[in-house]
Amino acid sequence: MTTTATTLKGQPLDRGVLDGLLRRRMFYTPSFDIYEGVKGLYDYGPPGCGLQANIIDVWRKHFVLEEDMLEVDCSVLTPYEVLKTSGHVDKFADWMCKDPKNGEILRADHFVEDVLEARLKGDKEARGQKAEEKEKDAKRKKKQKAAEAVKLDDAVVQEYEEVLARIDNYNGDELGELIKKYDLKNPATGVEPEPPVAFNLMFQTKIGPSGQLSGFLRPETAQGQFVNFAKLLEYNQQTMPFASASIGRSYRNEISPRSGLLRVREFLMAEIEHFVDPQSGKKHPRFHEMENIELVLLDRHTQSAGSTKVKTMTVGQAVKERVVDNETLGYFLARIHLFLKKIGVDQKKIRFRQHMANEMAHYACDCWDAELLTSYGWIECVGCADRSAYDLSVHAKRTGAPLLVRERREEPLVIEEWQVDIQKKKFGPLFKKDGKTVETALLDTSQEQREALAKELGETGNLTLDVAGVGDGKVQISKDLVQIERRTRVEHTREYTPNVIEPSFGIGRILYALLEHCYWTRAHDGGDEARSVLSLPPTVAPTKVLIVPLSANKAFDPFTKDISLKLRKAGISCKVDDSSATIGKRYSRNDELATPMGITIDFQTVQDKTITLRDRDSTRQVRADEDKVIEAIRSLVEGDKAWADIENELPIFEGQEVVVTEAKS
Amino acid sequence: MTTTATTLKGQPLDRGVLDGLLRRRMFYTPSFDIYEGVKGLYDYGPPGCGLQANIIDVWRKHFVLEEDMLEVDCSVLTPYEVLKTSGHVDKFADWMCKDPKNGEILRADHFVEDVLEARLKGDKEARGQKAEEKEKDAKRKKKQKAAEAVKLDDAVVQEYEEVLARIDNYNGDELGELIKKYDLKNPATGVEPEPPVAFNLMFQTKIGPSGQLSGFLRPETAQGQFVNFAKLLEYNQQTMPFASASIGRSYRNEISPRSGLLRVREFLMAEIEHFVDPQSGKKHPRFHEMENIELVLLDRHTQSAGSTKVKTMTVGQAVKERVVDNETLGYFLARIHLFLKKIGVDQKKIRFRQHMANEMAHYACDCWDAELLTSYGWIECVGCADRSAYDLSVHAKRTGAPLLVRERREEPLVIEEWQVDIQKKKFGPLFKKDGKTVETALLDTSQEQREALAKELGETGNLTLDVAGVGDGKVQISKDLVQIERRTRVEHTREYTPNVIEPSFGIGRILYALLEHCYWTRAHDGGDEARSVLSLPPTVAPTKVLIVPLSANKAFDPFTKDISLKLRKAGISCKVDDSSATIGKRYSRNDELATPMGITIDFQTVQDKTITLRDRDSTRQVRADEDKVIEAIRSLVEGDKAWADIENELPIFEGQEVVVTEAKS
Repeated sequence: MTTTATTLKGQPLDRGVLDGLLRRRMFYTPSFDIYEGVKGLYDYGPPGCGLQANIIDVWRKHFVLEEDMLEVDCSVLTPYEVLKTSGHVDKFADWMCKDPKNGEILRADHFVEDVLEARLKGDKEARGQKAEEKEKDAKRKKKQKAAEAVKLDDAVVQEYEEVLARIDNYNGDELGELIKKYDLKNPATGVEPEPPVAFNLMFQTKIGPSGQLSGFLRPETAQGQFVNFAKLLEYNQQTMPFASASIGRSYRNEISPRSGLLRVREFLMAEIEHFVDPQSGKKHPRFHEMENIELVLLDRHTQSAGSTKVKTMTVGQAVKERVVDNETLGYFLARIHLFLKKIGVDQKKIRFRQHMANEMAHYACDCWDAELLTSYGWIECVGCADRSAYDLSVHAKRTGAPLLVRERREEPLVIEEWQVDIQKKKFGPLFKKDGKTVETALLDTSQEQREALAKELGETGNLTLDVAGVGDGKVQISKDLVQIERRTRVEHTREYTPNVIEPSFGIGRILYALLEHCYWTRAHDGGDEARSVLSLPPTVAPTKVLIVPLSANKAFDPFTKDISLKLRKAGISCKVDDSSATIGKRYSRNDELATPMGITIDFQTVQDKTITLRDRDSTRQVRADEDKVIEAIRSLVEGDKAWADIENELPIFEGQEVVVTEAKS
Repeated sequence: MTTTATTLKGQPLDRGVLDGLLRRRMFYTPSFDIYEGVKGLYDYGPPGCGLQANIIDVWRKHFVLEEDMLEVDCSVLTPYEVLKTSGHVDKFADWMCKDPKNGEILRADHFVEDVLEARLKGDKEARGQKAEEKEKDAKRKKKQKAAEAVKLDDAVVQEYEEVLARIDNYNGDELGELIKKYDLKNPATGVEPEPPVAFNLMFQTKIGPSGQLSGFLRPETAQGQFVNFAKLLEYNQQTMPFASASIGRSYRNEISPRSGLLRVREFLMAEIEHFVDPQSGKKHPRFHEMENIELVLLDRHTQSAGSTKVKTMTVGQAVKERVVDNETLGYFLARIHLFLKKIGVDQKKIRFRQHMANEMAHYACDCWDAELLTSYGWIECVGCADRSAYDLSVHAKRTGAPLLVRERREEPLVIEEWQVDIQKKKFGPLFKKDGKTVETALLDTSQEQREALAKELGETGNLTLDVAGVGDGKVQISKDLVQIERRTRVEHTREYTPNVIEPSFGIGRILYALLEHCYWTRAHDGGDEARSVLSLPPTVAPTKVLIVPLSANKAFDPFTKDISLKLRKAGISCKVDDSSATIGKRYSRNDELATPMGITIDFQTVQDKTITLRDRDSTRQVRADEDKVIEAIRSLVEGDKAWADIENELPIFEGQEVVVTEAKS
């Protein structure tokens, strides 16, 4: 199995081995496995659950606490009307094709991609080149293997490659045309699938006993934040700008989930909605703190030119050169970068890619994704979209709720304008049931129209107005019923709908990419290929310390107990492994569980009360008394010190680690 | 408005006022309020969200870390088969009645309760007694008000009261009979509702694009833990007993949600599944640590005798006297009690009530609820059920997965038994397609049957066996096809299905009850009735410290910034309020937000760098330099010291707090 992905130490990454480790150690497991599972649903076991909780904890400190965001926790169940208004009922869909022979449902873009890739692979084989496997999952691999070695014309190869490069940008009709044009057939049946139809990705349900209230599981946490905007602004004592934030599950009924944790039907999101005055130029008060952070950027223009060549530049420079549109967007890109760095993502495997115009969600006017490089390719893990005033506007329009900011103007605004005065008492009797319609039509006139109407009224004593649905569509109104005059109005308050910058984190994707980035095998250090290590930073490692008594000897018990208690009191999670396996096996198991530190209790401990502390990554050890070791652990967990510092401070322990050949205990 | 509920200080609790406060300060708000909301769905705003996160944090430390539980995070979406097997598809239902006139859907037990209570109220009025309002929610109150003052016979009053006391114990037919018998009519229409039908409380949806895989939103987190049992046991290195734990949302499609946060359709649960060997007598290794904890108990027998008189006794005594069935159950009741105490629940408002036999969930064989006293009465907030081997057994049976423990026997078990040997080669040709059926029937025989069959075989050379569906239902088999002999078998391994003790926490209910328990008004101290206080303990208070600069004077800015930074670094959440409101108003706002400490920065700060620290509950203040105040805050938050200690250590500050009359800023 070959992929271009590498481990932390630059070794070729064997995804099958890593995946085996992650399942064996219960980082995650397919949900309802004993019932043969459901595609796209996964459970986190203890280490996955611990890692997830620690990532969330760092996220909350980095964003919510550091920036005083207003965290909310909203309902997942969402009534139809809310998602109809937000546009999700109409637009939140993928394209699917049905195979008329076996009824299989295919995701249209994936289907086109799979068949064209298989043909290109067949072409390479026919040309005698070793096919480079761009392997996305086992299923696809199987399909590719079934491909025949047929040579294609050079022009066809180029055409296919161009289609694949733009695969995310086709709509349903276009995908249907590609299927026809290239005569694409489902390898399973040999027949052409039916034309693509839209499949809405929201899970639907009924709320209440009558079955009449239709609802969905939310596809994002954002809507809960938007509909609460007025209350949040009030809670924030009417002060702008501010951000709300939410951590919670969302749901997308993927047509055919694949790629493990990367494309699932139920997932944890962490989303920020930063509300900003659009007239401020989307400046950010803390931008100066971030302007020197360097980012790797792949902008829209570069991609349009068919290139994936990235630029490395500071955020300050990027905003200055308008590669990134504004300070607030730039500020958050830098903050996202720092967050990913903090949890241990490989700096060489992050890039920020701007969405192409036709790739954006229906609500976005600009979007940058933080993509992480994995064995599945570059994967979108954080989206940072400028949703403009879209959501607040549509909800306000639909409900009449004032989702806007009212601000006292420092300088009152003086406006010269044409105003319409209506003699309502005379209006009703004349127009009867049409009175209201005519009135609305009059008040809806623009300044230009009013100027013309005022002129007409002055000259003829009457005005003629188009009012659809009343009489013959034209209404005459005389000057004793309506006056139109130019007057001065003074506005002391400004009203505006804030714009929204939304950094949105897929926690499961980040977690999986992080695991790939932190994985390596001891073969790199000349050790056993079968000994895998997950070098998660102590901050996010599920368990910080493994405590290992040398044997089941009762003399070790009080020491084990005492150290556990002290670590727990210091808020440091630890596990005791007093099983009968060798020390080496027990450490190997915990290397796979990403436990960064290990304490051994041995006969010397009983004599002089010293214990050894082992570093997961180097397997080197120091030996000192309990208090010094616990202080060393504390400083490592809090990131104040690195292992090298500890080796400088405490005596090295050379007692060799037992060599194990059979690591998978 | 009168209720029997009281505030923290024993004042009568006005729920309307408290509810107003909680909504105004955005502890919670009805979800999708601008869309007129959906019954039974609530969002938590920033303080509610913070309180919830802190309760969860204490829970995780108290249970998961302290007891080394295996935390998992499983899918909410659950396929039909899993919940069919667990019994939820068939049994997880409430009874509902439809009003034939207006189509209104009524929850049957609530309907009977409402109408009978209204009649009893009318009777009291007719007798000239002041009706004691047992008010459960505003809707019910309205219905009661509509009741006519009609005197009932004494016997009828007694009958109604007996029905109400047992209202949770009727099934659908019985509720239907009560409606007929007492001629109960829907007050809204004056007609009798249709007979009760079962309404399953699970939200249903379709998974995947074909629409053929039916699924539900989980009604509890437990099933995800059960189906993973084998993997969890493996992760725990085959060691028993152990517990898994999970924190996550569950869903119940309530027929008519009411009582605010107490009966909702989407809610956060924290559940523990403690797996124990049933042959161990459900002993618990750490029981001795809990045996002196005193609990208030209301057992099944007391309730059967029509009484609600509680007993106060230690857990040790309760288990000894078999009031509580076993050590593990007793251990968890005590641990639950300590958890509730830790987060600030009023000790006088907790009791543990045992379920009546007919009140238990379909999977439980014993259950104790931790009930908290609120203005809605005693409310179940934690259930502690003995689910026996029910769930693991049904899932194992359905899927064939080995959800059991295999243990090496210390002493091998020697078994004398009748064994059946079948000559399979001859069996097939003789019975043809029925061969397998006959074989299974033979192997399914009991020891007693085998003894008889062996005798028959010895005496006649043939045996006769009942095999339904084969021939005439009787099959003759001769001794050259089958032998039955008594032999000795030695078993070195013991296999058993663990029993489960399940403490299950409704976080939203606990959160609401806690808010009621911590609420009071300054009228108690001779202050303003309108000044409300939420005295949440610092451990769970959403924000720990409010920082208040005296005015907008720029001289205060560096101090405000410096203190915020230092507190944040110490991991203590704080908020700055530099609004133009008076100091008193700003403190009042934060009394309502439950912020336990306040720091004022004034002109003296600029001169001598001292700041004042205010205690929310007493409103008293001390004044000292920054470091001393921060150390005092740290010790208060960690629970090392109480305010009285701080007053002993630091100089009292007598600068009086500005009196405010208009507290609701």
